[in-house]
Amino acid sequence: MADGHITYTEDNLTDAVIARIRPDADPRVAEVMTALIRHLHAFVKEVRLTPQEWEQGIAFLTELGRWCDDKRQEVILLSDVLGVSMLVDAIANRHDASVSDTTVLGPFHRENPPRMKNGDNLSPGAPGTPLEIDVTVCDQDGKPLEGAQVDIWHTSAEGYYDSQIGDGEAHFMRGRFVTGPDGRVHCFTICPASYPVPHDGPVGRVLAAMGRGPMRPTHVHFWIKKPGYRDLITHIFKDGDPYLHEDAVFGVKASLVTDWSDGKLTYQFRIPRQDAA
Amino acid sequence: MADGHITYTEDNLTDAVIARIRPDADPRVAEVMTALIRHLHAFVKEVRLTPQEWEQGIAFLTELGRWCDDKRQEVILLSDVLGVSMLVDAIANRHDASVSDTTVLGPFHRENPPRMKNGDNLSPGAPGTPLEIDVTVCDQDGKPLEGAQVDIWHTSAEGYYDSQIGDGEAHFMRGRFVTGPDGRVHCFTICPASYPVPHDGPVGRVLAAMGRGPMRPTHVHFWIKKPGYRDLITHIFKDGDPYLHEDAVFGVKASLVTDWSDGKLTYQFRIPRQDAA
Repeated sequence: MADGHITYTEDNLTDAVIARIRPDADPRVAEVMTALIRHLHAFVKEVRLTPQEWEQGIAFLTELGRWCDDKRQEVILLSDVLGVSMLVDAIANRHDASVSDTTVLGPFHRENPPRMKNGDNLSPGAPGTPLEIDVTVCDQDGKPLEGAQVDIWHTSAEGYYDSQIGDGEAHFMRGRFVTGPDGRVHCFTICPASYPVPHDGPVGRVLAAMGRGPMRPTHVHFWIKKPGYRDLITHIFKDGDPYLHEDAVFGVKASLVTDWSDGKLTYQFRIPRQDAA
Repeated sequence: MADGHITYTEDNLTDAVIARIRPDADPRVAEVMTALIRHLHAFVKEVRLTPQEWEQGIAFLTELGRWCDDKRQEVILLSDVLGVSMLVDAIANRHDASVSDTTVLGPFHRENPPRMKNGDNLSPGAPGTPLEIDVTVCDQDGKPLEGAQVDIWHTSAEGYYDSQIGDGEAHFMRGRFVTGPDGRVHCFTICPASYPVPHDGPVGRVLAAMGRGPMRPTHVHFWIKKPGYRDLITHIFKDGDPYLHEDAVFGVKASLVTDWSDGKLTYQFRIPRQDAA
């Protein structure tokens, strides 16, 4: 045995790993890595992770990346079902009650959706219960905003997005509007459905192991952009949906649940100025 | 707004995600996932992870799995450089000072190495400083053990394992011995070198961001197996190596550092019975 060499143990290893971060590292990198190492080690110690469980974890993370491609993002899905995506959203979008709540973007937004104008139909010919969408984009004080870009997208009556149907190339059940002086977007479509998040991969196995279901309650997505204002990425949920209390990705907020029983989804969005606190 | 729907916030989301684990889930799954969710959320809240940083994290984890193949395991490498592998090892191998210390297996062990007998040369014709290896396998009381399988492997004088040279198919600088009644393994080889862990991928970027180097100090690997005894997976390190205090994977333990200055690596391994506390 030689003297002067540290022996890493359960008790000193965490500090030793953190101490290895050089003083000239970017301060934010140092802050994030220090917290990550501390929590990762605390987790391993708290559950006394066994070598077999560590191997399972390694295999899981390896498989996670391999499931990802243009149409599937299994790492985001993991973040969603563990509530991490909504937590990041909550931290980034703290605000008072005068602006609309945000929720997850999800993986089904597409760039360059069909351009539409008020009165158009998002889903011409699609089977399902008719739904009228009538929403207004306002500022924090309730004043209508002109020139806001509003992307709307949702599933079919069977719970599939356009990109999940056929070859996935056609754009429907989605559209892009620009508000006029009254801030209003008004269109026709069919009522979407609740649907499962993809659960045939490693994240599905984690959900099953926890005894959790993969369903998301019925919702319509909105992404509102206007120069000088903060982007609003959110959903409006359908009241009465049986999965509202067990959304697989924890995206539901009470302020985003509305009554569609008369075949109409109405909402007044309020978006804060970019420079708002 | 509809009543009766929970709104997930920074304050209640962690508990809500944990509460979703069903009572009939496997108790160990519930324990591990509860701790994982709590620490993951605590990390995100502590550093106030931004959406941009979250995106970087998602991209990093996605890339990690994509770097993995038969010859590269980037997820294990991440675990190694964050000290997690050695922490799991420390928890699994708590023992008193009468048995040998363990360290990481590393990715370069191969099944079916060349069978060797005492006096053989691990690296015939390989250039480098000669090294004689003379080790004994004993039980916890220092009594030599017959019939122990001893795998030995190490790098070339340039710091490459056989699988990293040429087409990687040839086996050299490695061998498998079985001890006789004196518990001894005695062979000849050349002195290995310090070397960098693979650092051309995502884990290399994390090391660089922390200002850390990728080097591992010079060592020879041993994996000792004997029925009725616990496996011993360890290295013996060369005293005086400049990287002993900054091993990229935190594998060094004082008891595993020995003086090779006379061209000889000697060691007495002591392995515990399977049923030892």
